[in-house]
Order: sequence, then C-alpha cells, then structure tokens
Amino acid sequence: MGEKRYEPVKLSVINYDSANFQEKEVNTVEEAFSFRDESSVTWLNIDGVHQPEIIEQVGKHFGMHPLVLEDVANTGQRPKMEDFDDYIYVVLRMLKFDEKENETKAEQVSIVLGRGFAISFQEREGDVFDTVRERLRNNKGRLRKMGADYLAYALIDAIVDNYFRVLEKLGETIEDIEDKLVTNPSTETLRTIHDLKREMIFLRKSVWPLREVISRLERSESALINKSTCIYLRDVYDHTIQVMDAVETFRDMLSGMLDIYLSSVSNRMNEVMKVLTVVATIFIPLTFLGGVYGMNFRYMPELELTWSYPLILTLMFAIAILMVVYFRRKKWI
Amino acid sequence: MGEKRYEPVKLSVINYDSANFQEKEVNTVEEAFSFRDESSVTWLNIDGVHQPEIIEQVGKHFGMHPLVLEDVANTGQRPKMEDFDDYIYVVLRMLKFDEKENETKAEQVSIVLGRGFAISFQEREGDVFDTVRERLRNNKGRLRKMGADYLAYALIDAIVDNYFRVLEKLGETIEDIEDKLVTNPSTETLRTIHDLKREMIFLRKSVWPLREVISRLERSESALINKSTCIYLRDVYDHTIQVMDAVETFRDMLSGMLDIYLSSVSNRMNEVMKVLTVVATIFIPLTFLGGVYGMNFRYMPELELTWSYPLILTLMFAIAILMVVYFRRKKWI
Amino acid sequence: MGEKRYEPVKLSVINYDSANFQEKEVNTVEEAFSFRDESSVTWLNIDGVHQPEIIEQVGKHFGMHPLVLEDVANTGQRPKMEDFDDYIYVVLRMLKFDEKENETKAEQVSIVLGRGFAISFQEREGDVFDTVRERLRNNKGRLRKMGADYLAYALIDAIVDNYFRVLEKLGETIEDIEDKLVTNPSTETLRTIHDLKREMIFLRKSVWPLREVISRLERSESALINKSTCIYLRDVYDHTIQVMDAVETFRDMLSGMLDIYLSSVSNRMNEVMKVLTVVATIFIPLTFLGGVYGMNFRYMPELELTWSYPLILTLMFAIAILMVVYFRRKKWI
Amino acid sequence: MGEKRYEPVKLSVINYDSANFQEKEVNTVEEAFSFRDESSVTWLNIDGVHQPEIIEQVGKHFGMHPLVLEDVANTGQRPKMEDFDDYIYVVLRMLKFDEKENETKAEQVSIVLGRGFAISFQEREGDVFDTVRERLRNNKGRLRKMGADYLAYALIDAIVDNYFRVLEKLGETIEDIEDKLVTNPSTETLRTIHDLKREMIFLRKSVWPLREVISRLERSESALINKSTCIYLRDVYDHTIQVMDAVETFRDMLSGMLDIYLSSVSNRMNEVMKVLTVVATIFIPLTFLGGVYGMNFRYMPELELTWSYPLILTLMFAIAILMVVYFRRKKWI
Amino acid sequence: MGEKRYEPVKLSVINYDSANFQEKEVNTVEEAFSFRDESSVTWLNIDGVHQPEIIEQVGKHFGMHPLVLEDVANTGQRPKMEDFDDYIYVVLRMLKFDEKENETKAEQVSIVLGRGFAISFQEREGDVFDTVRERLRNNKGRLRKMGADYLAYALIDAIVDNYFRVLEKLGETIEDIEDKLVTNPSTETLRTIHDLKREMIFLRKSVWPLREVISRLERSESALINKSTCIYLRDVYDHTIQVMDAVETFRDMLSGMLDIYLSSVSNRMNEVMKVLTVVATIFIPLTFLGGVYGMNFRYMPELELTWSYPLILTLMFAIAILMVVYFRRKKWI
Repeated sequence: MGEKRYEPVKLSVINYDSANFQEKEVNTVEEAFSFRDESSVTWLNIDGVHQPEIIEQVGKHFGMHPLVLEDVANTGQRPKMEDFDDYIYVVLRMLKFDEKENETKAEQVSIVLGRGFAISFQEREGDVFDTVRERLRNNKGRLRKMGADYLAYALIDAIVDNYFRVLEKLGETIEDIEDKLVTNPSTETLRTIHDLKREMIFLRKSVWPLREVISRLERSESALINKSTCIYLRDVYDHTIQVMDAVETFRDMLSGMLDIYLSSVSNRMNEVMKVLTVVATIFIPLTFLGGVYGMNFRYMPELELTWSYPLILTLMFAIAILMVVYFRRKKWI
Repeated sequence: MGEKRYEPVKLSVINYDSANFQEKEVNTVEEAFSFRDESSVTWLNIDGVHQPEIIEQVGKHFGMHPLVLEDVANTGQRPKMEDFDDYIYVVLRMLKFDEKENETKAEQVSIVLGRGFAISFQEREGDVFDTVRERLRNNKGRLRKMGADYLAYALIDAIVDNYFRVLEKLGETIEDIEDKLVTNPSTETLRTIHDLKREMIFLRKSVWPLREVISRLERSESALINKSTCIYLRDVYDHTIQVMDAVETFRDMLSGMLDIYLSSVSNRMNEVMKVLTVVATIFIPLTFLGGVYGMNFRYMPELELTWSYPLILTLMFAIAILMVVYFRRKKWI
Repeated sequence: MGEKRYEPVKLSVINYDSANFQEKEVNTVEEAFSFRDESSVTWLNIDGVHQPEIIEQVGKHFGMHPLVLEDVANTGQRPKMEDFDDYIYVVLRMLKFDEKENETKAEQVSIVLGRGFAISFQEREGDVFDTVRERLRNNKGRLRKMGADYLAYALIDAIVDNYFRVLEKLGETIEDIEDKLVTNPSTETLRTIHDLKREMIFLRKSVWPLREVISRLERSESALINKSTCIYLRDVYDHTIQVMDAVETFRDMLSGMLDIYLSSVSNRMNEVMKVLTVVATIFIPLTFLGGVYGMNFRYMPELELTWSYPLILTLMFAIAILMVVYFRRKKWI
Repeated sequence: MGEKRYEPVKLSVINYDSANFQEKEVNTVEEAFSFRDESSVTWLNIDGVHQPEIIEQVGKHFGMHPLVLEDVANTGQRPKMEDFDDYIYVVLRMLKFDEKENETKAEQVSIVLGRGFAISFQEREGDVFDTVRERLRNNKGRLRKMGADYLAYALIDAIVDNYFRVLEKLGETIEDIEDKLVTNPSTETLRTIHDLKREMIFLRKSVWPLREVISRLERSESALINKSTCIYLRDVYDHTIQVMDAVETFRDMLSGMLDIYLSSVSNRMNEVMKVLTVVATIFIPLTFLGGVYGMNFRYMPELELTWSYPLILTLMFAIAILMVVYFRRKKWI
Repeated sequence: MGEKRYEPVKLSVINYDSANFQEKEVNTVEEAFSFRDESSVTWLNIDGVHQPEIIEQVGKHFGMHPLVLEDVANTGQRPKMEDFDDYIYVVLRMLKFDEKENETKAEQVSIVLGRGFAISFQEREGDVFDTVRERLRNNKGRLRKMGADYLAYALIDAIVDNYFRVLEKLGETIEDIEDKLVTNPSTETLRTIHDLKREMIFLRKSVWPLREVISRLERSESALINKSTCIYLRDVYDHTIQVMDAVETFRDMLSGMLDIYLSSVSNRMNEVMKVLTVVATIFIPLTFLGGVYGMNFRYMPELELTWSYPLILTLMFAIAILMVVYFRRKKWI
C-alpha cells in the first residue's frame, strides 16, 4: 500500500486522431468520460491512486474487474499483464532519477488499454511521459496516426527508456567507487558497494517480470493490439533484455569490486603489521643484550674492560644490520 | 508427525447460502454430517488431527482415499494439490505470527473441496480464518453468494495474506539488525542473521510448492471449480509470487548483511591491532635506548657528561615524534 | 563392483494370494522356480549378487536381458527404471541406519517386476523389508489382496521410508553439533560438519534419480502396473520429494553452521589477541619509563630527590589507568 | 550510442558470381545501388554508422523497417536475428585483437541479408573480413559459386573465428599470471585477474546471445537461406559453443587462481608473522631474567657469587635452545 | 589444431562377419578400400590426422562432407554427433591413463559409421580399443554376429569405460590428499587440490556433451542403427551419467577439502600465535616489575629491606601463576 496522501487526485485527458488534438485537465471523473467516442483515441492519465472512489468510478465506467481495481490501488504489485478480452491490464514499475535529490524514485504505473482508449494510473504527479505528450501535441512521428495500442506502447517504451537513464547514473557511481577503491578504500566505500548491490536487486526485481509482461503483450492474440504494433513491442522487449544484461554486468562488477575491497583492506593491514613487527623484532634481541649488561653481578669481567662498551655497541649494530638484510632477502620488508 | 496432543478435537460447522447462515460447534462427527445437503455450502472446520478415528469417520462419510487421510494426519507434508474427480485435496502450511510470544507458528492445513462442501483440518485451535468467518456472518462481499470453491479460495487467500504479515515482522527485525550492524556488531547480531536466514529457508520451502499448488488449482479442469473463481485464484497466485520475491530479496539482503558484519568485525579488530601495535612499536626502540645507558660498563664516557641525560631524553622524544609522523603519513594511524 | 564376498547366496521365496501364504528358504535356483504359477504372487528375494551363475539362471528362467543381469551384478548403478514390456527393472539404493555401529549402510537393490512375480536382489543379508514380510504373513492391510505391482510398490515404499529414518539420525547429529558450535567449537566440529555435508551429497545422489524412477513408474503405460497402484506410487513420489526437501534444508543449515563455526573461531581468536595485546600495550610504555630511570648517567637530578620515586610510581599508575579508560571507551576491552 | 565521429562514411561494393568479380569504393549511396541486379551477388560494406542520412537512404532503397535502421545506428545492441520475410537482419559483436595496442576492440556489425545481396554495417574502418575478400578476389573455395546466404555465413564465420584469436590472447595472459602467482604474487596480479574476469563477462555477453542468433538462422524456414548453407551455419554454431566452453573454463580457472592468490598472500603473511613472533617470544623471557638481576635490591645474595654470572648466561642459553627445540617439534619454525 | 607430427599415418583394417576374420595393416588408402563389400563389416582404423591428403581420400571414397573432414583434422572439437543419412559422424574425447608417466592423456576420436563399415580416426597410435580387437579376433561375445552399428557401440563403450579408469586414479589421488590434509597441510596440498579441480573441469567438459551425443544416437531414427543396438547405447548412456555423477561428487569433495585446508592452515597459525602471545603477555608485566626495581632513585626504601628481593620474586611467580590460571579458565591455552 502506498503511504497516505492528501493532495487531490489529478485527472488529465488527451483526445486525438491524426487531424485533431485536445488536451485538458478535468476535475471530476464524469467530465473525463465526455471524451469517450469510438473514432478518436483517448488517453486518461490519473495522478494518485489514494482515492478509491475515483478508481471505482473509472472502473465502473469501463467495466473493469474488481480485482484489477484492487491491483491499481495497492501499489507494490509485481509487473504483470492480464488480458480481459475487452481490455488489457498492465502493471509496471516506473523509475525516475531525480537530479535534484540525487535519488532514484520508483512508482507503480497501471495501464489499461481498451478499444480506443488508454488509461494510466500513477501514484503521484511527475512522470516520464513528457516526450509522449510532446509528440502528441506536435504531431511528430507516427504516434497521432496510430491507435490506442501504439499509445500504450509509447508509454511502456518511455518507462523502459528511463531504466537506461537510471542505469547510467548507477554506472557513474560505480566508476567513482572504482577509483576510490584503488586510492583510498574506506568503510564508506564498502557501504556504497552494498547499497549499489541492493539497488541492483531492486532494479532486477522490476525488470525481470517486465520482460515477460512485454513478451506476453507481443505474443497475445488480443484484437486490441495491431500486428504492426508487435514489432515495436519486440523492440521494447530487446531493450528490457539490454537492461537485464546491464544489471547482471553491474552485479558481476560489484562482486568483483567487493573482492578487491576486501583484499586491499587486508593488504593494507598486512603491510602495517609487517613493518611494525619487523621493527619490534629487530629491537627485542638488542634490548635483551642491553639487559644482560645491566645486571648487577659483582663478577662480570667484561664490564671492567675499556673496549667492551664500543664492542657491544658494534655488535648490536651488526645484529640489526644482519636482520634487516635477512628480512630484505626474504622480501618481508 | 505432529507431537502427541491430548485436548479434544474441536469440530465447528458453518452452513450458508446467500440467504441463510448457521454456525455451530458439534461434538460428534455424526452431528457434523447432518448439515450436508446439496443446495447450501457447508464448511466443516476440524481443529486437531491427532484422533485418527475422527479423520476416518469424516473420510468414510465423504468417500476420501485412505492415502488422503494419512496425509491429513501426518503433518509435515509438502504443500500439494490432488484432484480426485469427486473432491480436490489441498495441503498448505499456515503461518501465523504470534504477537505475544514474538514467534512465527507453522501449522499444516488440509482443505478438502467437494460438491457443496469444504473441510479444513488444522493441527490445533487458533487460525487465520477469522476474517472469512466474519465475512460469512455479516454477509460482506460476494462470499455468501458464491459456491464452495470460492470458500476454498477465501481460505487459501487468508493463509497467503498471513505470509505477508509474517514477512513484515521479519522485515522489521531485519531493519533493526541493520542499524545494529552499523553501531554495534556483536556475536548476537550474527546469530540473529543466521536465524533469519534459516527462517527464510523454511518460508521458501512453504511458499515455493504453494505457487505450484495454486497454479494447478487455477489450471485444473475440475468441475468443482467455477471459471469465475479462476481469476481470484490467479490473484492469489500473484500474491505467492510477491511473497517469493520478498523472500528472495530478504535472502539477498541477509547475505549482504552477513558480508558487512564480517568485514565490520574484522575492521574493528584491525583498528585495535593497529593502534596497539603502533604504541608498542614506538616504545620498543626507546626502551632499547634506555637499556643501553642502563648497562654497567666501567668505561662509558657519555655517562659522565652533564648534558648527556637531557640530550638522550630529547633524542628519545625526537624518535617518537618522527615515528608518529611517519605512521601518520602512511595513514596507519 | 561390490567387494568379493564368500558367504553363500541366500534365496527366499514367498508365495501368496489373498487366501494362501507360503514362505520358504530354498537352496537352489531350480527349487525357487517351482512356485511360479500365474494365479498367485511370488516374491523371490536373493541376498547376494556375487555368484554370477545364480543371477544367470534366474535371468534365463525369466527371460531377462543380459544387460539387466550385468546391472544387477555390478553394484554402483545409478537408480533407474527400465521397462521391457514383459518385465520392469528398477534399481534403487537402500539405506539403513545400523544402530549398533552408528553408521548408515548403503546397498544396491534391484527389483524385477513381472506378471505375477517380483524378484529383489540385494548385496547382502539384512534389509528394510521386514515390515512388508510381516504384513504378508499376518495378512494386514491390502497387500495380500493386490498383485505383484503392489508388492513392488511396498518394497520401494519400505526403502524410501528408511530414508526418513536416516535423515532423522542425521538431523539429531546436526542438532548436537549446533549446540557444540555455541559452547565449544573445535576442529572436531568442523570435521563433523564436513562429514555431514558429504553424507548429504551421497544421500542427494541416491534420492535425486529415485524421484525420476518413481515418476516414470507412475507415468508408465505398462500393463504390469495397475491404475489403482499409481496413486500409491504418487504417494511414494511425494515422499521422495520430502526427502529431497529435507536434504536441501540440511545442506543449507550445514552451510550456515560452517559460517558460524568459522566466525566463532575467528571471534575467539580475536578475543585472545585483543586482551593479550592490550596487556602488552599498557606495560610497554611503563617499562620504558622504568628503563629511563635505570640509566646510569652521572647527572640525573631527579634521581636525587626524595619524592621522585613515589611520584614516578604514581605517574605509571596514572598512565595505566588512563589507557584502560581509553580502551574501555573505545570498547576494545 | 557510439561516440561522435567525423571521418566520412566509407562505402565499398563487391559484386560477383562464379565467373565475374567487381570491387569498388563508392562515394555516394546512389552509386552503390547501380550494382543491384538479380543474377549476381552484391556485398555492400559500410564503415561508419554515424551519418543517419546514409543509413536512411540504404534503408529506403532496400525497404528496411525504421526500427532496423535505428538498431543499425545505435551501437550497443545485443546480438539478435530478425526475419522480415524479404530480408534477414543480424546484429553481432565483432571482436578484434589489436596487436599494436595490445587491446581487444569491440564493434557492432549489422548484416542485412536479402535476395542477391548482403549489406554489412560497421562502426569504423578495419575489420576481420579480409580473408573473405581474399577468397572472393581469388575465387578460392566455394564462396563465388554460392549465393548471398553463403556470403553472410562467411562473414559471421570470420567474426566467430576472431573470437578464438581473442581467447588465445587471453589464454596467454592467464598463463603468464599463473606463473607469477607462484613466484611473486602482487596486488598487480590481483588487479589483472579481476580485469580478465571482467573481460570474460563481456565476452560471455557477446557470445551467449550469438549462439541463439546462429541457431535461429539455421532453423529459420526463410527462403533466403539455402538448405545447403544450413550445415555451414551448424558448423559456426559448434564454434560458438566451443567459444562458450573456453570462456567458462577460463572463468573457472580465474576463480581458482583468485583462491590461490588469496591463500598464497595469506601464507606469506603467516610466515612473516610466525618467524618474527618466534624471535620475540624467545627473547622476552630472557630479557625478563636480565631485568631481575638488574634490580638494585641491597640484599640479593646471588649477585655476590663468582659463578652466578656465567651460570645465568648458561641458563639463558639453555632456555633459548629449549624453546627452539619445542617450536621445531611443533613444526612452528 | 593438434601439434605437428611427422610419423607416418598408420592405417589398419579389420574385416569380419560371424564366420570370417581378416586383419591387416595397409600402407595406402587404396589398399584399405579393397575390403569394402556389403555383406561383411569393415573397421578401418586410422592413427594420425596430420596428413590431410589421407583424410581427403577417405572422405572422397565414402562421400563424406568437407566440414566433416575439417572436424576430423581439427582436434579440439566438442563431442558431437551428426547424422548425414548415408553415414553418422561422431566425435568423442578418448581419455587414457598412462601408468608409466602417471598422467591422463586425451585424444580426439572421430567415428564414421556407414552401411557395413566403421572408420575411426585417432590423433596418434595407442588407444583403448584393444579389448574390442581381442573380442573380434577370438569371436567372443556377440560382436562378430552383429553389424557395424554394434561395432561403433563397442568402440564408444570402450572409450566411456576408460573414463571410469581415469576417475578411479583421480579418486585415489583425492584420498591421498585427504589424509595429508589432516596430518600435514602444505601449499603443495593446495596446489594439488586446485590441479584436481581443473582436471575435473576438463573431464566434465568431455563427458557433459558426450551424454547428449549418445542420447541422440540412441534416439536417432537412422536406418544405420538397429533397434537391438539401442538398448546397448542406453547402457552406455547410463555409464556417462555415472561418470557425470562421479565428477560432480569429486568436485563437491574437492570444494569441501579446500575449505578444510584453509581452516586447518588458519587453525595452525592461530595456535602458534596464541601460545606465543600468551608467553609474551605473561613476561611483559614481570619485566616491568624488574625494571621498576632497576631504577636508580636515591630514595627507594624497599631496596634496603632484606626480605624485599625474595618477596618480589614470589610476587612475580604469583602473577605468572595467576595469569596462567586465568588463561586456562578462558581456554586460551
């Protein structure tokens, strides 16, 4: 279930055929239905699924099954496609990278494709459909000449295209981390790697079923989908596979980076321990020698000799040098 | 096999159609059968499978296969669905989060769906079917208007819905652990992660075959299941896939947490070792110097000079400072 | 190939129908064949496959393919099922937990199911079929009323049931180990975990193909298998899946235990190293201080002052306290 | 999308049948089309996909679908094959090992196979098709006698053959690393292993879909592909599987090498720590002994005895020897 | 490609039916063909594929496809089976354990099965077919009574049988290593484990496709293969699965051994570190005490007392004992 939201649900309707184009924001559901006529294509976009009465009115008007309305309202659905002869119901996850907050935002989008109309339900305002709207307004490309199925394709395509944008952002973060891994690995780096891994898990969860959704759309025998649209759906399908590929590659890369992180941290530790232990080891035997000649025995003949002190200093120095040489030869320092 | 239990088996019968509703607790199996008539739907709920004679009587009355009766009595079955033309036998695992004891409780539930009746066998009293009972009593929704197959769907749906509740609880525990992982990782944390992993294994074992059970129910050509019920079964199927998804995501998250735990424990250890070894390493050469001038040789000219002592103290201080600087530059401290 | 064995091959024959029951041990193969008549069911059990001439005689008498006889004699076959119109050949692995030697024993069992007879070949005396024999002798259940196919089912069922017993034993060992893991992890524990893992590998190797064997038996269109027996085979099939599930769960648990073992060993080591290093670190600076005032410089004015010694002792004590406090605050001790 | 490039797109045309051969570089697309006639085979090779107008002209001339043209221009496609009755569109990744820069270079190659012609689009000049051109020029082998489908096969075959060359190079690098792993493991080695692992990931991503592309080409019922060419496609298919096998083997080898690297690094570290700690441990008790007799108590009778000093020296020596012997026996040094 | 070889190619022909048997070495290909007549079976064995002209002559004589001849000459093929109506082409990997050099040798064997003849191409002299030759010479078993398809089966069977021999050898090595793992783990052990793992990878690569080859042979509808031979092929198929099983089990065992190796190495290291550090920790506080009373302060009243020295010695001893007891209780030593 999405969090409670209190802003009003926003309904906007676009009605078009190759010659005409009308766009308006409506306040009531009834008003939205006025556009429904067979010859043109109507796109009803609903921002907000937190007012059940609106969803119910829409559902009643278009003869939608109660379970579909439940799925529209309960965000957290797995991407899926269901074909009810009269209409096709598609649930997707829309990802959008918010440049301002440097964060990926996910939202459930439900698309209902019927004869001559397409309805899109979103959780909140702000979406990735602006390019579609622009192409409708300016009559660019073939969008205005095609039916509602092509509109639905255009919406799905816009969603999948944004996956690439999100992947690009994640790719940049991965490259940043990779550099830090070499120069200065920190616990922070580890945390980021794990955060990225988790984001990959979620991305994968969004894309994996999407693949099947689009494949079933393409292969569906539904009268609502034109044969000529199928090749475009196939194209989106290829894109989802590319997204999957990229996600898998990123996952593999992140696993490799984790290995590198762990072994570079342990390398640094080893280096510290090694040098320090070498220092300690050189001085311990010398300190012992010093201790021996610090003993207070009455009869220690060496202590009385004039050259004992310089000799013992020389001996100490020699031992130190020998140990350093030995460690060097063993490549320990 | 379930543990031996001595409390009496409890039988309760609900008989309803869209107009009438009767609910009563019965003491003998014979009494339960009195309700059996074709036009209304009878739900016989049996709490306790530890009295074979009761199961046998029920089995004989409804013409159930001896192997089915064995499966009902032997808890520990894998979720499965078997279609014996006259009736459909479904075994499920019911999970219930016990708020009082803060523990997930599992129980085997067998559902036998026949023409006009549904029988549910549970291991002990207390279940997740209260919402179903409530809807029957108050005639809410379409439950009273539909047949026994819809009742069976409602029971399965109630069971699957409780999986989500259990998952929510586990999700909360995971979040708790995640915070502790950062602030204060302990062996306790490790134990909890492994306990959660094990619970995921058991959850997965319950849900994975469930998916197939529901899929086979939906696709079964049995005359006992109405076409109109199929779409609801499809909905439950989607829910089981969502549960699976959540379980897999939790598993991935737990694996990641285990990695973080291990490397943060080793980080803490490294930090301890590093600082301590640095301290030791600074003082070892200094102690050596002290030892040298503690030697009792008769001829040590330095000892006689007035400025020797302050000089050697200064030297020691300088060495210490130099080592600290070196370690700092190497980023070891 | 099984090891060479010199004890004589033991042949025992049971001949029964719903009314009659005959059981005898025979010394020669010829004697065993005397029982062969169409109306009753004959079960010929052969303990020992190390005398090729016996297997050959049996094979010739029942018209078995030379490759089947080879498979019977060469233990180490993978469980499989082969349908030669006239007879069905099934190879299984029989597991038996030997309470005396606290060890699981494996043996290859070949079952040949023909019209009115079933032959079982075992590697050595001692099997899991005593319950089947008992039910035949006492005419319990439906065994005496059914044909040879039901007898074959009963034998397979007895074998699969013993898998559960073996699993139970392994489960107990796992629980034992789990407790030791917490209280006192030793190299012994590690060895046991790995031995259990290996036993799981072998169990899995026995059960995995078994599943397919039974599934093929159930789905085979052979005239030798009655439709009514199929539901019982389905039941055994469910049991093999439960065994598989248990094996997989045990494997997952063992992996988790291995992780816990490794991290608890490393935790113990860390604890040792930490406390010991802390002790060393506290005393090293103090020893240095002691060394400084052990130097024999002529002019060390501090040495002459009365309050120097108590002061330096106090200083040492203060340093030690401060370090302990610091370590405590850092949660190192 | 490929990077922006400003060098002009290069078009070269080869037109041949078994008797005639013509090869020329053309400057405009129109010129390229002059060769189009039914009886001979035309191969149009286009180096550069950064000028959309050229791709569009080619597309219009041969009646290609807009989405195909998009795929040609957008490098980064996954290898795929699409059959549009009139022509077959194949996308591949061409790998080429650049001896000069010691680097593997990847490029997207699109092949359009139509009736009597084949068009190949490459990202930039320089390819792996020189052997094909040579065989065409010199009329070697059966290439000139066969149709456009065989030409397409020859191009694909040349691409797959280069995968083997790239694999050979990678194999050599792996062998180099393997030697270093034994003699002198360094962080550099680790980095190289991870780089190779990453290259394997990318190779795998190129070959895995390629396998399916060729399999679909072979099994396609398209009239454009002769039955006699299928056996050659089957041959390329076998090659891609060999490439896959090699990639998987390399991956397994690299994983093993990573394990060896990690444990040899830790072995080296252990060796250092062990010897150094042994040294320290031997001298610490001796230094303590020295310290005891360096104490300044007035009444230490041992200090007065003549033989105390040599005795204590002997004792120290004996302790050292005993510890070395003990460590030796324990196999610690 | 196999390495260049200069010894001459050896051709040997065996021609037989149930009554007659002829065996001879021929020098030229022409001579080999003289035996070709329909009623008897001819087995042409060719040792050496490095002289293309010989392969070409054979190919021309039997009407083999050029790609087949290429595959015969290019060793390094993946095991595969191709059915060209007139003949069946099978490529296998022959493994042979060379007792003298204690090494497994691999070789590519191509078998061409036609009507009344079988041709086997090997890379070099020396093979696993001697038992087949012996059975042909001595007319043992059914080999002489059957057709060329049974001969091909016998050759494949001989190859697969040798896989078991190689596996046995590897199994022995694994057992050796396993014992060393417990008594004396060394870097050598690690290397051997990894070498075995790599051999398993290569074995698996040989057997995995072999399984499919034999399965396709068995299921092929080719007129060249008798129905009665199929059951023998099924038998070989079972053997390949047993080989696969053994390889997988060995892989699992090797993984387990690797884990044991790593943890026993780290256990040994921990033991060393622990004992040594304990020694150091006991003596460090004692040395400090010695240092305190080695200070040269003028006013240290304790130094003057008669019982100070024995008291301080007793104190030191007590501290040492207490620490040992503490460590013991903590189970650190």
